[in-house]
Amino acid sequence: MFAVEVRDHIMIAHSLPGEVFGPAQKLHGATFVVDVAFFRAELPPDNIVVDIGRALEALKKALAPLNYANLDEDPALAGHVTTTEFLAKTIFERMAAARRDGWLGPHAEGISRMRVTLSESHVARGWYEADVA
Amino acid sequence: MFAVEVRDHIMIAHSLPGEVFGPAQKLHGATFVVDVAFFRAELPPDNIVVDIGRALEALKKALAPLNYANLDEDPALAGHVTTTEFLAKTIFERMAAARRDGWLGPHAEGISRMRVTLSESHVARGWYEADVA
Amino acid sequence: MFAVEVRDHIMIAHSLPGEVFGPAQKLHGATFVVDVAFFRAELPPDNIVVDIGRALEALKKALAPLNYANLDEDPALAGHVTTTEFLAKTIFERMAAARRDGWLGPHAEGISRMRVTLSESHVARGWYEADVA
Amino acid sequence: MFAVEVRDHIMIAHSLPGEVFGPAQKLHGATFVVDVAFFRAELPPDNIVVDIGRALEALKKALAPLNYANLDEDPALAGHVTTTEFLAKTIFERMAAARRDGWLGPHAEGISRMRVTLSESHVARGWYEADVA
Amino acid sequence: MFAVEVRDHIMIAHSLPGEVFGPAQKLHGATFVVDVAFFRAELPPDNIVVDIGRALEALKKALAPLNYANLDEDPALAGHVTTTEFLAKTIFERMAAARRDGWLGPHAEGISRMRVTLSESHVARGWYEADVA
Amino acid sequence: MFAVEVRDHIMIAHSLPGEVFGPAQKLHGATFVVDVAFFRAELPPDNIVVDIGRALEALKKALAPLNYANLDEDPALAGHVTTTEFLAKTIFERMAAARRDGWLGPHAEGISRMRVTLSESHVARGWYEADVA
Repeated sequence: MFAVEVRDHIMIAHSLPGEVFGPAQKLHGATFVVDVAFFRAELPPDNIVVDIGRALEALKKALAPLNYANLDEDPALAGHVTTTEFLAKTIFERMAAARRDGWLGPHAEGISRMRVTLSESHVARGWYEADVA
Repeated sequence: MFAVEVRDHIMIAHSLPGEVFGPAQKLHGATFVVDVAFFRAELPPDNIVVDIGRALEALKKALAPLNYANLDEDPALAGHVTTTEFLAKTIFERMAAARRDGWLGPHAEGISRMRVTLSESHVARGWYEADVA
Repeated sequence: MFAVEVRDHIMIAHSLPGEVFGPAQKLHGATFVVDVAFFRAELPPDNIVVDIGRALEALKKALAPLNYANLDEDPALAGHVTTTEFLAKTIFERMAAARRDGWLGPHAEGISRMRVTLSESHVARGWYEADVA
Repeated sequence: MFAVEVRDHIMIAHSLPGEVFGPAQKLHGATFVVDVAFFRAELPPDNIVVDIGRALEALKKALAPLNYANLDEDPALAGHVTTTEFLAKTIFERMAAARRDGWLGPHAEGISRMRVTLSESHVARGWYEADVA
Repeated sequence: MFAVEVRDHIMIAHSLPGEVFGPAQKLHGATFVVDVAFFRAELPPDNIVVDIGRALEALKKALAPLNYANLDEDPALAGHVTTTEFLAKTIFERMAAARRDGWLGPHAEGISRMRVTLSESHVARGWYEADVA
Repeated sequence: MFAVEVRDHIMIAHSLPGEVFGPAQKLHGATFVVDVAFFRAELPPDNIVVDIGRALEALKKALAPLNYANLDEDPALAGHVTTTEFLAKTIFERMAAARRDGWLGPHAEGISRMRVTLSESHVARGWYEADVA
């Protein structure tokens, strides 16, 4: 299995309702360093898993609505607890849609799996990984 | 698959008997930066893989008998060569026990897999990963 | 010159008023990984710049009012633009006060200089460094 | 599953022919920080996945023909686009051969899987992972 | 003293003539992760050392002629041995010129010192630091 | 001011006598990732602060008596509390001697200052920096 992973980041505010979150129930924030990994079984003739330039552009586009935002006021996230795990899946789904819609270029058709990792500090991170059809 | 990973560290002394270990046969030591990853297939309604606060506490508790210790004199490790790989599994088993015993909270019942990684320097690390029942 | 540096982190929300801040004028947030360095010219007999355990406790105490908070609503910061640079100095002053008040222990009297670094992402950080009397 | 991972690096020049590579079609270069992970199901009595000393030596040997080289002039790579992904597999194959030829020592027979990761900057990396027979 | 530091990177080919360079006399390459630190004694009312957005743009502009290039063929570097140290100063001078020419914005007038660091691998880096008039 | 910094590491056992050290009074251990920075005002014609190959060899030689050792039994350290700070200065002195004795090569005569940093975990490090005559 081959993989390529690229990195960007977002800076967000949010609150996490629920007793389990302790002080994080208050409005606070986070920098999430976001890594997206693309997996595929075999390489095409130009030996790339994905066009990295397009991958970085698609990631920036996927992250734009979240960046410099208060997630508590984002209609697309209403009713959800915006944990690191949940946001990893949210970004995964946006990247999967970008792939389906051709934003990752023709090479991206061979991608069979993706993983989105959000590092929230030097001591904690979360990710979501799944096949893409 | 969702995952969350948290970090702590220990500082230990030990020796590694056996010719294959060369100079590490002598009493020496290591800082192990310890990452524990928790995996689960689906998220519960509050969107967390595990209660991170409890995970960090359970990890600190699991590491306490090893921290600032000479592993050569730890009765729980007697007869074992305390390599990075072996210690990764040892800590894995203690974290798995913590989960069974409820130290990770009710959310932890949905955890299906764990991984414990020990980074011993900027150039070497080891890990153990397995399902938890 | 000897130095010791310790690390902790905070997760905050804030907004940065002023056209120069572009999209960061909106309410957003950040994880700041906070490193505090303590400098001194010579070591005392037990060869430590500062008691690391006390330094970490004092840092946690200095950071507590900022952690999991919306800095826009912190009375102690009212009227200030809470940039990374400004927050570095704010934390510096709280650590300098902790030293004066004895929270860093008797060793801390020999500390002549401190530096507080806030890393806000994998591509940007800021710091404040100055002598302490 | 147990794993051990070791690190080295190479500094190479190359060009990447093909419109998809944009400015990287020109002769340029890269530092690749190379991590090789070795996986095995169970540990032998001395509790090691692989002899780390031998693994590092074998890695240095596998990397030597690539290090401080212009890959465009390497006959072994002629006709291939030397992307990060492709180089990860190339190094994987050389490490797999090293294992078959006994360079990793007798412990290496129990290794069932390997992964080679090439980090090319703080924002991009690629890897190849597969079973070894 | 306040400081802000931002990061970008370049991927270059070059050769280093002179016996002292051993195998690096051959055409090879490097990724340089480039950090530029800006220092100033006091903060202006909006509490920033420099406009980070402008700093990142100016850095990208300063790096552009070096990125994806063979430095052996760059007329601006002809006759120079393009070591990490030398390139750090080269980029420093281009950033100092950017500041003088107003690319860093009006805040940049208060900058009194700069440092450019080039990390070439996980085990080596070089930098140049000096006052700017 | 120009600088170059190189990295190696040691794995040691020791104990730290004195109430201030709490649990670290017991025999334990550490991995110290060791960075040595060399400073000089101007570059010689071949544009290097120091011959990196020689610097790495000299560092390995300076670290050898400490690596895989129990520092409590090292006669050269007898009567000293082997804190991170103290060890930074110890290694500094050995590197300064290496420079005086010619192990760093002729370029090293222009070195005016050095710094030795020991990172003991992801949250703590210490260093010693001074002029060299």
